[in-house]
Amino acid sequence: MSTTQEYIDQNKDKFVEELFDLLRIPSVSTDSSRKEEIKKAAGFLVSQLNNLNLDTVKTYETPGNPIVYAEHCPHDDRPTVLIYGHYDVQPSDPEELWDTPPFEPTIKDGLIYARGASDDKGQAFTHVKAVESFIKTGQELPVNVKFILEGEEEIGSPNLVPFLEEHQELLACDMVLISDTAMFGEDQPSITYGLRGLAYMEIEVVGPNRDLHSGVYGGAVENPANVLCEIIAKLKDEDGVIQIPGFYDDVVPLTEADREAFAQLPFDEEEYKKTLDVEALHGEKGYTTLERSSARPTLDVNGIWGGYTKEGAKTVLPSKANAKVSMRLVPDQNPHKIAQLFKKHVESLAPDTVKVTVNEHHGGFASVTDLDFYGLKAGAQAFEDVYETEALFSREGGSIPIVADFKRVLGVESILMGFGLTSNAIHSPNENFSLKDFHRGIKTSARFLELLPDYAS
Amino acid sequence: MSTTQEYIDQNKDKFVEELFDLLRIPSVSTDSSRKEEIKKAAGFLVSQLNNLNLDTVKTYETPGNPIVYAEHCPHDDRPTVLIYGHYDVQPSDPEELWDTPPFEPTIKDGLIYARGASDDKGQAFTHVKAVESFIKTGQELPVNVKFILEGEEEIGSPNLVPFLEEHQELLACDMVLISDTAMFGEDQPSITYGLRGLAYMEIEVVGPNRDLHSGVYGGAVENPANVLCEIIAKLKDEDGVIQIPGFYDDVVPLTEADREAFAQLPFDEEEYKKTLDVEALHGEKGYTTLERSSARPTLDVNGIWGGYTKEGAKTVLPSKANAKVSMRLVPDQNPHKIAQLFKKHVESLAPDTVKVTVNEHHGGFASVTDLDFYGLKAGAQAFEDVYETEALFSREGGSIPIVADFKRVLGVESILMGFGLTSNAIHSPNENFSLKDFHRGIKTSARFLELLPDYAS
Repeated sequence: MSTTQEYIDQNKDKFVEELFDLLRIPSVSTDSSRKEEIKKAAGFLVSQLNNLNLDTVKTYETPGNPIVYAEHCPHDDRPTVLIYGHYDVQPSDPEELWDTPPFEPTIKDGLIYARGASDDKGQAFTHVKAVESFIKTGQELPVNVKFILEGEEEIGSPNLVPFLEEHQELLACDMVLISDTAMFGEDQPSITYGLRGLAYMEIEVVGPNRDLHSGVYGGAVENPANVLCEIIAKLKDEDGVIQIPGFYDDVVPLTEADREAFAQLPFDEEEYKKTLDVEALHGEKGYTTLERSSARPTLDVNGIWGGYTKEGAKTVLPSKANAKVSMRLVPDQNPHKIAQLFKKHVESLAPDTVKVTVNEHHGGFASVTDLDFYGLKAGAQAFEDVYETEALFSREGGSIPIVADFKRVLGVESILMGFGLTSNAIHSPNENFSLKDFHRGIKTSARFLELLPDYAS
Repeated sequence: MSTTQEYIDQNKDKFVEELFDLLRIPSVSTDSSRKEEIKKAAGFLVSQLNNLNLDTVKTYETPGNPIVYAEHCPHDDRPTVLIYGHYDVQPSDPEELWDTPPFEPTIKDGLIYARGASDDKGQAFTHVKAVESFIKTGQELPVNVKFILEGEEEIGSPNLVPFLEEHQELLACDMVLISDTAMFGEDQPSITYGLRGLAYMEIEVVGPNRDLHSGVYGGAVENPANVLCEIIAKLKDEDGVIQIPGFYDDVVPLTEADREAFAQLPFDEEEYKKTLDVEALHGEKGYTTLERSSARPTLDVNGIWGGYTKEGAKTVLPSKANAKVSMRLVPDQNPHKIAQLFKKHVESLAPDTVKVTVNEHHGGFASVTDLDFYGLKAGAQAFEDVYETEALFSREGGSIPIVADFKRVLGVESILMGFGLTSNAIHSPNENFSLKDFHRGIKTSARFLELLPDYAS
């Protein structure tokens, strides 16, 4: 075993303790009252990186949350890896559904339970520890490494793209390394080479200028909550086909080869349903579950609210009703164009009895990486060396819009080397990350850096 | 002017202060944590009634909130009036939309702002003060009076009907007097002779056993919020006609005479729209606004919720979504039958990808009072004497299910002598009650009691 891998084994517990310190900071970026915690999380990463004697460690302020940057580039003739991660997390609500406090990391049955354990603090931290395992054992890094750790991923990275555009020289690299995805299954590593894009919208339907008594006005005055339901019901047909005119225009159809690749992935639909506790699945007609969840566009209500929502019965005709609706996109859909089509269509469905407003939250492009890229191959080998299993290549349904941005602005491919599992409950109560995968993640990252020079030549 | 009416004028300010003491008690019956406040409100009324040297004042405990009862029956040969009111109130949320604290009554531009000001503390209290104005001026009451003041009206009076059934002898009377409705307009008194019934339901749609990441699962797993919208959208067609099979079976159609009476009521549709700030109205095709809002059945979403509803964007596929949906009913619809039809229909609309549960909250029958009843005539005259304007007879869209129960159990008609206005914002933020109408209400109640013996003979 290499010195590096030995160091990682010896420092297993220390690494977990350090991760816990990071997980304790409730750096929720969607919550504007959490600015101090955001700063604290960034500061924690800076102090971790400062401890490694790198060439540069720096915090860049943005109009939003700070970006933590570091670099160590001792080689003129070796590849440069830009490691991307995010230290912000999703909100923890509904908090009552957590078995342990979301910001008090707890180990149970080999899993670390905490908001951000997998998405993305735990995963991003593996690379910091991998770099540490070279430096602290007196070794030079095998390749050049740059870190870019942001605090706005969960709100759509509004300040990252401007930052990339402004600092193209600083960020020049041969590839981006990202751990913010799930492996195909337990002990089955995989590299995600395709991601969906996203357009996230919010609809507000306003009726009368105040909540009304549903007895006195009901039947004569349009109910905005009913209208909102009617609008949403019209966005998909019974076959799960999205009804927004033009929505599918730019979708690159799946090829026979794509579909064959999906068909060959190990997938147990009965087990999938059982894990989710659903009797039946439903999605776009003519596609398999894996195709639907990773390579076809979608439309989902993420949140809906209006009127009286507490205990008991209140006979109110609500003044307004709202919904958050997002669409997952595939190549070559443009999220801004889709957002416009959505807005136009929803507005066209609105009767003149109400006022409908449609706003765009963040969005991002889908991306698919070239399977011949040497970085992907080195990643697969690193996985195989550590997990002792051949890594699969898969497409995933989630969105990491910045993958498309890295390609566009820096001209490089991203390697999505996720150490998570779909059972990690990211974005849900009881988010978790396996202790074993945290440990193997650090080892895989270090191994990847070791292997890369050979694959590059 | 009579001694009674003079006493009412002289004690105007004292009455307002006493009402304020009652309004300060947050006796919200839908909130199970408010039991103490419920008791306090009942206790306040008991002490008010105890102060009048009546034959009996008593609190009856129920499995829910207490019923305050009082009687004073000095006459063998005169009518007995059972005065009904409720001391419980609607919740005050959304509290941030109140201009003044809901439980700190505030006078502004001649209006008392407080939760319960009009519905029903302020209105019910007029009768207590009317009775006081006879007793405290040393007069005998012109008729026999019984009070029944309950604390569960806003949750559907679950314990009132059993109470009526158990105490038929105690409650024996010639009519029920209720002030819990609105007048036709400012300075335009009216007696409501028709009320709609109610069936109030709650739907829960459960999909996967936890909130899911909408990127990882979206497209393959049914979204319960989308399903809920689809179900609700199917409950009415584009003409506002309710699509539940059998829903209209027992509806007594409006007669030509009914429709003519509606057409003759003074109603300015442009003004109505302007007050509500809506461009257009919508309701069941083939009916006028007044018919739709008071004499035809309806279906309204009262509340809907599911998924992420806070600031920003969370990419969640919610595990479940809920809605409160109520239907206003007309003679001869049976609320329990309608609830069953609703449940059956909603369940039939549910796909096998989700679990749908439908529960029934409270309900009640519609009612229409005979226009020839002498009590109604005395009420109209009392209004005319105090307001110096002829009173109208109207049907109202709201529900006071106990009106049908009084008829069924005690065999008597109810006189709905409301002193409120539709602009009172009952069930809404900034509920209010005009000082002037509180004062005129007390006078009208006293005048009614004075006039009644003549009308009875």
